[in-house]
Amino acid sequence: MEDLDAAIDLYSKVFGAELTHRASNDELNAAFLRAGESEVELLEPRREDTPVGKFLARRGPGLHHVAVAVADIDAAMAEARAHGLELIDKEPRVGLHGTRIAFIHPSSVGGVLTELVEE
Amino acid sequence: MEDLDAAIDLYSKVFGAELTHRASNDELNAAFLRAGESEVELLEPRREDTPVGKFLARRGPGLHHVAVAVADIDAAMAEARAHGLELIDKEPRVGLHGTRIAFIHPSSVGGVLTELVEE
Repeated sequence: MEDLDAAIDLYSKVFGAELTHRASNDELNAAFLRAGESEVELLEPRREDTPVGKFLARRGPGLHHVAVAVADIDAAMAEARAHGLELIDKEPRVGLHGTRIAFIHPSSVGGVLTELVEE
Repeated sequence: MEDLDAAIDLYSKVFGAELTHRASNDELNAAFLRAGESEVELLEPRREDTPVGKFLARRGPGLHHVAVAVADIDAAMAEARAHGLELIDKEPRVGLHGTRIAFIHPSSVGGVLTELVEE
């Protein structure tokens, strides 16, 4: 997204999503919205030389990744490796929610950047 | 997706999604999987001269669209129009689930092709 506030406005007013919280790190600003049982995460890069900044420069705004909730991220990463999937993160790291996350390379998941999130 | 069965296999075995049904029309083959409270729809085009076939040829496999469940699609389309969003479908049409659907142009939703689905 190029304008996070405009995106929050759109998702809230047109699609009935509810803003639950915002978070930032040195790479991006994020907004988390609840839409029924799903969560929408809107991302705005703070610099161009970041993964989300490069994505936006190369492809324009759009769908960035899908997150899959897992009970045990170590087990999920082992399962992914056992199926020959390429993990971007070799070890779990802490995401914006404070939970442990790891990304799987899009080339392993039909072009879809996929995030494992431990609940 | 270029190979629907391989994609179903991946989502089932690695991400624990459950195949609920398949559907086809003259443009594509689809598989619907339940993942927690969300539904994943895997699409494989049957011809190149279709919207999904063109997407796959142009961008490669990846995230195609997001669906938003609405209670009343006529009201949701009116709301979208009132907010200046461009609707691809001027009137609701019947989707693969037999429900009424309408697509909103990605240029109106931060690059995300968005489907309204009446529940």
